[in-house]
Amino acid sequence: MNSARFSVGVDFGRTNLRIAAYTQESGLVETILLPTRVSEGRDAVVGDMCGAIQRLRDRYSPQFQLAGIGVGSPGPLELPAGRLRQPPNLPGWDGFELRGTLERTLGTRVLVENDANVAALAECVLGKGKKLGADSLCMLTLGTGVGAGIILRGQIWDGMSGMAGEAGHLNIWTDGVACGCGGHGCLEVYASAAAVRRMADEKIAGGNAPGLAALAKRNPHFSAREVAELAQAGDTDAKTIYELVGRSLGIGLASLVNMLNLPLYVLGGGVASAWELFSPALFEELRHRSYVYRLTIPEVSRAELGADAGLLGACLLPLCAAELGS
Amino acid sequence: MNSARFSVGVDFGRTNLRIAAYTQESGLVETILLPTRVSEGRDAVVGDMCGAIQRLRDRYSPQFQLAGIGVGSPGPLELPAGRLRQPPNLPGWDGFELRGTLERTLGTRVLVENDANVAALAECVLGKGKKLGADSLCMLTLGTGVGAGIILRGQIWDGMSGMAGEAGHLNIWTDGVACGCGGHGCLEVYASAAAVRRMADEKIAGGNAPGLAALAKRNPHFSAREVAELAQAGDTDAKTIYELVGRSLGIGLASLVNMLNLPLYVLGGGVASAWELFSPALFEELRHRSYVYRLTIPEVSRAELGADAGLLGACLLPLCAAELGS
Repeated sequence: MNSARFSVGVDFGRTNLRIAAYTQESGLVETILLPTRVSEGRDAVVGDMCGAIQRLRDRYSPQFQLAGIGVGSPGPLELPAGRLRQPPNLPGWDGFELRGTLERTLGTRVLVENDANVAALAECVLGKGKKLGADSLCMLTLGTGVGAGIILRGQIWDGMSGMAGEAGHLNIWTDGVACGCGGHGCLEVYASAAAVRRMADEKIAGGNAPGLAALAKRNPHFSAREVAELAQAGDTDAKTIYELVGRSLGIGLASLVNMLNLPLYVLGGGVASAWELFSPALFEELRHRSYVYRLTIPEVSRAELGADAGLLGACLLPLCAAELGS
Repeated sequence: MNSARFSVGVDFGRTNLRIAAYTQESGLVETILLPTRVSEGRDAVVGDMCGAIQRLRDRYSPQFQLAGIGVGSPGPLELPAGRLRQPPNLPGWDGFELRGTLERTLGTRVLVENDANVAALAECVLGKGKKLGADSLCMLTLGTGVGAGIILRGQIWDGMSGMAGEAGHLNIWTDGVACGCGGHGCLEVYASAAAVRRMADEKIAGGNAPGLAALAKRNPHFSAREVAELAQAGDTDAKTIYELVGRSLGIGLASLVNMLNLPLYVLGGGVASAWELFSPALFEELRHRSYVYRLTIPEVSRAELGADAGLLGACLLPLCAAELGS
């Protein structure tokens, strides 16, 4: 065994578990992919997770020193306890002691974090943050919902109980569409993949969106991606939807920039790939609504790491944990 | 000289300069009050400030060890440079190197900070934060405008260039009233003393607000305080104004709570004294719009320190500066 260190990281997704061994020299040295057997219950999922962690720990411990184990989990996740709180896509997991259960099973300390936070950490340490020399950023992940993570001076900002970074619930259109959080007009209901689909359905129901109606007829399960393709092909209704995505993101980013004055804001997730469609409206709102933006011109751009951000961030957790404390 | 330390703090206000010597044992041991001679130019103001600092430094240095000099200044203030950037109430000061000028004049290091940030620091170390054992908070100061400061783990969060904490420009009513920042519908245009006056003027101009019209006739220079008195006496129009103040604050706080997940949010400044009038609407919006609030129930309440917060915070700057770096 030499003194080089490795970590084991878990990307706990709703569909797949990805478990990897990581070294600072070589990055991801081995990745195990498993289905997330949510329907078979918590014990099955945790058992799969721990089995894979154990295999990687056994395989790399003879060569490297284990720095720790990190897990990126769907939220809301209460910290430092590592307890799930009413996770919307994991029925039956409310109150589950994810961290404690993993630690008892593995017999060692485990760092557990919200998935949006670990993705932001990876983007800071290995992605756009590294490229620009920025050790603070806010990352918005535009997926089915809108997640976010805040990194301040190289460390995840968790808040008092792990629930910081809920930028998906920033106020955008005060009397707007009802959100799953109980509020109205949140960023998530205007800038997520689900929001794009909802806006398309509304336009189709309005009866004046022939391109979207034809899309729905061809493919009733169409997604934000197909709406983007239609917009790229010049469909006015589809373009209007992405313009509203951009305006909403610009309004939300203006609040973030005014509050946090960070050097870098990155957008990841599937919807971010429609950057050309929504970014003009985004920057128009941002310039209009944030004098801090106009004075400081922080970088606002697409994330670099793509789908690996969550897994890389989980692997980085033990390596960046010096000051995380608990 | 014993080993007890003292600091000198300056509250650089638009009307008055307050300069004080402070010890951890006795608090403010001596305060000098001077008018801020803005009309006589920057040299006059800086000269007054440095003269008073020098007098207090000379007087207390034989007994105590000087920890440093702190100044709370109107913003926007670029940090770490300590340079003013287009300060709205200090014409001719744009680009002024406040920190450098003070350091050259005094021949020593000076810590300069935004006034809303030092008030938040004082509230954390000596006010509500101390009372509740919270080392992180966000303080909104509801004065002529709306300022804010964020304290994270005992330290001011300045952002990349000193402009963090501009909560006065959080998005509240997206297509609302134009704000001095260039945007629309910011918190500041619904929750400041100037906003209360503007809303009263609008109601008077509408012709259906007899109580407010009578107030304006009695006292054309009436302020937010007189509107609050009218509301306390039962005037429906005045009550409606403070209800909108409360709703706007609740919407803004919901965004803050969702993003930052802090244990404590405090409201200071003149408008905060109308707490009973606006807080029911504030909490209604906050509960509605922030599931993080509903899950974590952080404390949201009035600040403790009143008009001394800025001066105390300036004195605390050198004493809390361990990790501030520059």
